[in-house]
Amino acid sequence: MASNSFGKIFRITTFGESHGPAIGVVIDGCPAGVSLQTEEIDQQLAFREPGKSAYTSPRTEHDRAEILSGIFEGKTTGAPIAILIRNKDADSSQYDAVKNVYRPGHANFTYLEKYGIFDYRGGGRSSARETAARVAAGAVAKKLLAEHAIDCVAYVAEIGGIAIPEPMSSDLRQIREKTYANPIFCPDEATSAKIMKAIEKVKEEHDSLGGVIGCSALLPAGLGDPVYAKLEAELAYAMLSLPATKGFEIGSGFAAARMKGSEHNDEFDIDEAGHVHTATNFAGGTLGGISTGSPLCFRVAFKPTSSIKKPQKSVSLYGEKTTFQLSETARHDPCVAIRAVPIVEAMTAIVLADALLMNRASKC
Amino acid sequence: MASNSFGKIFRITTFGESHGPAIGVVIDGCPAGVSLQTEEIDQQLAFREPGKSAYTSPRTEHDRAEILSGIFEGKTTGAPIAILIRNKDADSSQYDAVKNVYRPGHANFTYLEKYGIFDYRGGGRSSARETAARVAAGAVAKKLLAEHAIDCVAYVAEIGGIAIPEPMSSDLRQIREKTYANPIFCPDEATSAKIMKAIEKVKEEHDSLGGVIGCSALLPAGLGDPVYAKLEAELAYAMLSLPATKGFEIGSGFAAARMKGSEHNDEFDIDEAGHVHTATNFAGGTLGGISTGSPLCFRVAFKPTSSIKKPQKSVSLYGEKTTFQLSETARHDPCVAIRAVPIVEAMTAIVLADALLMNRASKC
Amino acid sequence: MASNSFGKIFRITTFGESHGPAIGVVIDGCPAGVSLQTEEIDQQLAFREPGKSAYTSPRTEHDRAEILSGIFEGKTTGAPIAILIRNKDADSSQYDAVKNVYRPGHANFTYLEKYGIFDYRGGGRSSARETAARVAAGAVAKKLLAEHAIDCVAYVAEIGGIAIPEPMSSDLRQIREKTYANPIFCPDEATSAKIMKAIEKVKEEHDSLGGVIGCSALLPAGLGDPVYAKLEAELAYAMLSLPATKGFEIGSGFAAARMKGSEHNDEFDIDEAGHVHTATNFAGGTLGGISTGSPLCFRVAFKPTSSIKKPQKSVSLYGEKTTFQLSETARHDPCVAIRAVPIVEAMTAIVLADALLMNRASKC
Amino acid sequence: MASNSFGKIFRITTFGESHGPAIGVVIDGCPAGVSLQTEEIDQQLAFREPGKSAYTSPRTEHDRAEILSGIFEGKTTGAPIAILIRNKDADSSQYDAVKNVYRPGHANFTYLEKYGIFDYRGGGRSSARETAARVAAGAVAKKLLAEHAIDCVAYVAEIGGIAIPEPMSSDLRQIREKTYANPIFCPDEATSAKIMKAIEKVKEEHDSLGGVIGCSALLPAGLGDPVYAKLEAELAYAMLSLPATKGFEIGSGFAAARMKGSEHNDEFDIDEAGHVHTATNFAGGTLGGISTGSPLCFRVAFKPTSSIKKPQKSVSLYGEKTTFQLSETARHDPCVAIRAVPIVEAMTAIVLADALLMNRASKC
Repeated sequence: MASNSFGKIFRITTFGESHGPAIGVVIDGCPAGVSLQTEEIDQQLAFREPGKSAYTSPRTEHDRAEILSGIFEGKTTGAPIAILIRNKDADSSQYDAVKNVYRPGHANFTYLEKYGIFDYRGGGRSSARETAARVAAGAVAKKLLAEHAIDCVAYVAEIGGIAIPEPMSSDLRQIREKTYANPIFCPDEATSAKIMKAIEKVKEEHDSLGGVIGCSALLPAGLGDPVYAKLEAELAYAMLSLPATKGFEIGSGFAAARMKGSEHNDEFDIDEAGHVHTATNFAGGTLGGISTGSPLCFRVAFKPTSSIKKPQKSVSLYGEKTTFQLSETARHDPCVAIRAVPIVEAMTAIVLADALLMNRASKC
Repeated sequence: MASNSFGKIFRITTFGESHGPAIGVVIDGCPAGVSLQTEEIDQQLAFREPGKSAYTSPRTEHDRAEILSGIFEGKTTGAPIAILIRNKDADSSQYDAVKNVYRPGHANFTYLEKYGIFDYRGGGRSSARETAARVAAGAVAKKLLAEHAIDCVAYVAEIGGIAIPEPMSSDLRQIREKTYANPIFCPDEATSAKIMKAIEKVKEEHDSLGGVIGCSALLPAGLGDPVYAKLEAELAYAMLSLPATKGFEIGSGFAAARMKGSEHNDEFDIDEAGHVHTATNFAGGTLGGISTGSPLCFRVAFKPTSSIKKPQKSVSLYGEKTTFQLSETARHDPCVAIRAVPIVEAMTAIVLADALLMNRASKC
Repeated sequence: MASNSFGKIFRITTFGESHGPAIGVVIDGCPAGVSLQTEEIDQQLAFREPGKSAYTSPRTEHDRAEILSGIFEGKTTGAPIAILIRNKDADSSQYDAVKNVYRPGHANFTYLEKYGIFDYRGGGRSSARETAARVAAGAVAKKLLAEHAIDCVAYVAEIGGIAIPEPMSSDLRQIREKTYANPIFCPDEATSAKIMKAIEKVKEEHDSLGGVIGCSALLPAGLGDPVYAKLEAELAYAMLSLPATKGFEIGSGFAAARMKGSEHNDEFDIDEAGHVHTATNFAGGTLGGISTGSPLCFRVAFKPTSSIKKPQKSVSLYGEKTTFQLSETARHDPCVAIRAVPIVEAMTAIVLADALLMNRASKC
Repeated sequence: MASNSFGKIFRITTFGESHGPAIGVVIDGCPAGVSLQTEEIDQQLAFREPGKSAYTSPRTEHDRAEILSGIFEGKTTGAPIAILIRNKDADSSQYDAVKNVYRPGHANFTYLEKYGIFDYRGGGRSSARETAARVAAGAVAKKLLAEHAIDCVAYVAEIGGIAIPEPMSSDLRQIREKTYANPIFCPDEATSAKIMKAIEKVKEEHDSLGGVIGCSALLPAGLGDPVYAKLEAELAYAMLSLPATKGFEIGSGFAAARMKGSEHNDEFDIDEAGHVHTATNFAGGTLGGISTGSPLCFRVAFKPTSSIKKPQKSVSLYGEKTTFQLSETARHDPCVAIRAVPIVEAMTAIVLADALLMNRASKC
């Protein structure tokens, strides 16, 4: 039920508003015996932090995780792991001017319709700030996955219509190195250079760009569930739960709609070691909702940042037509997709951790 | 947990294999007082049935729902509604020849990896046969939604690269009439004619086509949940849980990745009656996971039918390279997307019914 | 959410009214590879059937399970197992006379308050008939448990104030043999004889008796969850979900309230084989919600059968004071606790099956 | 799944160990618009605090709630409410001496069996300290219930075999006043005096006492769910999830097993205002799992405190027989039931809040 929880066995519950005292997450169901250090969480949080370059928002949050529970002598105990991230730099006075106007592309209109009340400071619960808690939880999931040789990596695949050449290699370590060394998390340098120019241009225009994030994972065959909790369904759910997402596709994705069965079907092959695998991977790593052992490959579409400094027509809470305009000093990412990279990766890790644990009940 | 259940308050659990005695669904959480007749379910099942035209599989199932519980004097009582659909025409001998080969594009490989056992007859639980149970449940959801003036309709938007002109009208009744009068559920007659030719051609080639199903819904503002259970996340989960789906997009979808914020943001407007709405609908009907009151618009990508009569390379369960080939008499849809139309509609209705009931707990 | 489901991983959903066409259960989450025959379910259903002796209701249902799904070549496949039990002997005309009166001790008043509609025939969903579906599910759970050397047995511990001598042996096989050989499921013959006389007397008085059902289980240490999903909490939930139950106690139970810590604490001991165990078992088999490896021992209180032939004051649905009286020919158990024995055992098996599967995620 | 969560719509997740930096709770699903002040939570926490009198443990915690999220301008917003309670006075060195011994009546043995790791400081997650988080959540639930005229109160009904005279009045305000004015939460002064003497005596003996907590609630008819999620089943689950509980009974409880149907059935009556009610209340406020509108009355059995200063036989983690003895300076309640009063009340409020919200989906 609870709309602030995600996952079945490896289950996270996040809380906190962007301008409240803190945000955080409780991870329930992480098995005992996973080694975990606060620094490992902080490292992931750092990737998500703004202000790393001219291409993201200059706000400096310096997120630091405080582990409140669930760890004893450096290992998980099976008890819930609560992680707190204090909010800093939270001047909400800039929101006073706009608190009585429906913000185009934002959720204050719909929250008011649903709840009759809205914490307008920085978007409250609908702020992307919430995703820092997801990243903290993802850091824990990754530690569990690492014990089972499961890994995943996300990267910028396209921004402003400028896309990296496909297909990516399935060497996740290599993708990760290139991605995290790049100021906009793009593993292809030539593409990255073009994208950065496009971002500089759109910033001058007081406008923003959309993008596509790609993600690859390596995992054994047999993970995921049939029928409703298909691995791709869980991933789609996870990705569309992220702010600003507009689409999800796995493997061939929407391009599959323009293919023939004889092109799309991945034929089975067997190597000399007797390992059965598919010769191609249009499926994107699953069949019938369960992993094939081929790399899991999917893509997520992000809309352009809704917070732009151009004036936009709107309506006030009192029913008057008005113009909505952010202050000149407001700080926003020109492209939310960039900072979404570690978030997509974190949610993928959480989905896979859950699938890993769920799978233990599949055989008698 | 249970991977054969879907929904939180309006919760369905399906069961049954394609070649077992029956399939069915238990709907738990439907409120009391919804009027329901068996015929209303049968009517929806008829839309999903194959054999309606040359463009779907000729298998004649003649599905009939048997309501086993939960209805008293023509109304729901609040008790679980169990609906049984007996299987007919289930000759499984045709599967004997292929039972020891991994089927390209099918789930027998992954089921065996996960469970160590597989009911190979007709695909067992991974068969699209399971979706008949979803359609039956969707018929009940629609009756509940109708009492609250909520409606949804799905249609063929594109097959084999041939797409209908967008945007669709938001007159759902008109779309429904055109869609269900058309032999391939395509609301645009000119497009439909072209698609039918493409299907005839691909059938001759013993091959298959993919497609895109569109869906529109009318609902009040304020439905859906923030953070994880966003309305679009629930829809994405529902759609990617359908067999053969490869992608989901809402509103502008993947095209949003190529737009600017100033183009994509839907400005708010107010009409003379004081009704606040967005002037455009790139968002596709939600903001922050909650409905805006504008039409909900999304699209689902289906891969081409995996069951084709062309020979394909594969591997046997005993590790030998082999060729997989369906018998000449096997009956399969040349494009699974067509029959998916009522299924997409049913799952949408179930998601909306659940959101409707969940919403009742949002205010004190 | 769904109030007709029970369990987390091993999850059952029941449906059906006493006078509808059928009742049944869908078991979702049973692992693949458990051998299962219809006869094994029928055997459990037979224990629950009325008409075995003069001490239960003479209604002859002859329940037969029809397995609709989830079994292939005699084994579970991991797919949902749907079991249907057709209703017979369902003359509902006897209920016409009483359909407009609130029945003392029954649920028609509260169902009408909650749902505004009530299927009065035989109690509809509130009928003990629903428990046949639980027994069918319990038969499947027992098969899974047997593969892991876990067993449980329930028995009549007290009826009409006449109790068996405690403590019971922990030889479950012996308890089971005595219990199921006895016409009122009482493992102590001398006690049984006294109880049967008391039942004969109360039948003559057109009245009924209450009772207490005991249950013992053997299972390894380490099953169950801390905090909310404690093993005893799950059992209490399961037992209080049975019709006519008024109480649950584990180990020393309510008597613990009159003990001192030095008496109640079970001291730890170690045997020659190095096996740590508690010297006594006042705890009843758990500490902190997790099994100790000592026998699980609990008791459930059942109220006397509410359906009695004595006239009782009541009120009609139209607000008139009236007298409620069952017809002379109505058939009811003089003591519902007797037939509850296989039901308590079934629910225990389901709780333990769930705990067994949940436990697989406890360690990294 | 998650064993540290409780509730379906009004759902709490607790975290934290007794000797870690903090414990806390996230409440997800509380509707928007409930007024809430930190002081209202602190007031409830104060009732649970030890050191109030000679009859509870002298540890002085001075719990203070910090609301981290979900409140805006004094009202709930529909977002998750996270409440943090910092631990103080947490010297864990006293546990060093006993960290390698299985503690009689405690959970270190079973936690080690389940998880292979145990935070021995103060019992870690199995500590009663966790219940402070439940009390904080209960304070929020009570605020919601108050808006719907639902109320509940718990009290000491029996300690060391000394019981208050039954039946209690159904004037909850009066019971509450007496209960919370009494140093051991006993609403009957004469009984209270006897109990206090018994406690003094058992303290001298370095031993402890068990007890029974009673609870009454006033709520409208129609709340609760049939079949599995019966109101009494949810309450039993909640109560048996509390540390040290051994039993639950509702209404007549175990005494029902010794009654006849003609005695136990509550006859229906109607008053001059046309209000239908039961003349007696042996049922304890529910029929078929749904509230009748009569007071909800139940009782919970608590074992005597396991932490006693008498030496007890035990076994070390290394398999040696040993003697377990708490240090002379260890501080423990002579009777855990006393401090359980506000905890039982809190869990009841949470169950009722959940039932209230669930009920909104019962009718079309």
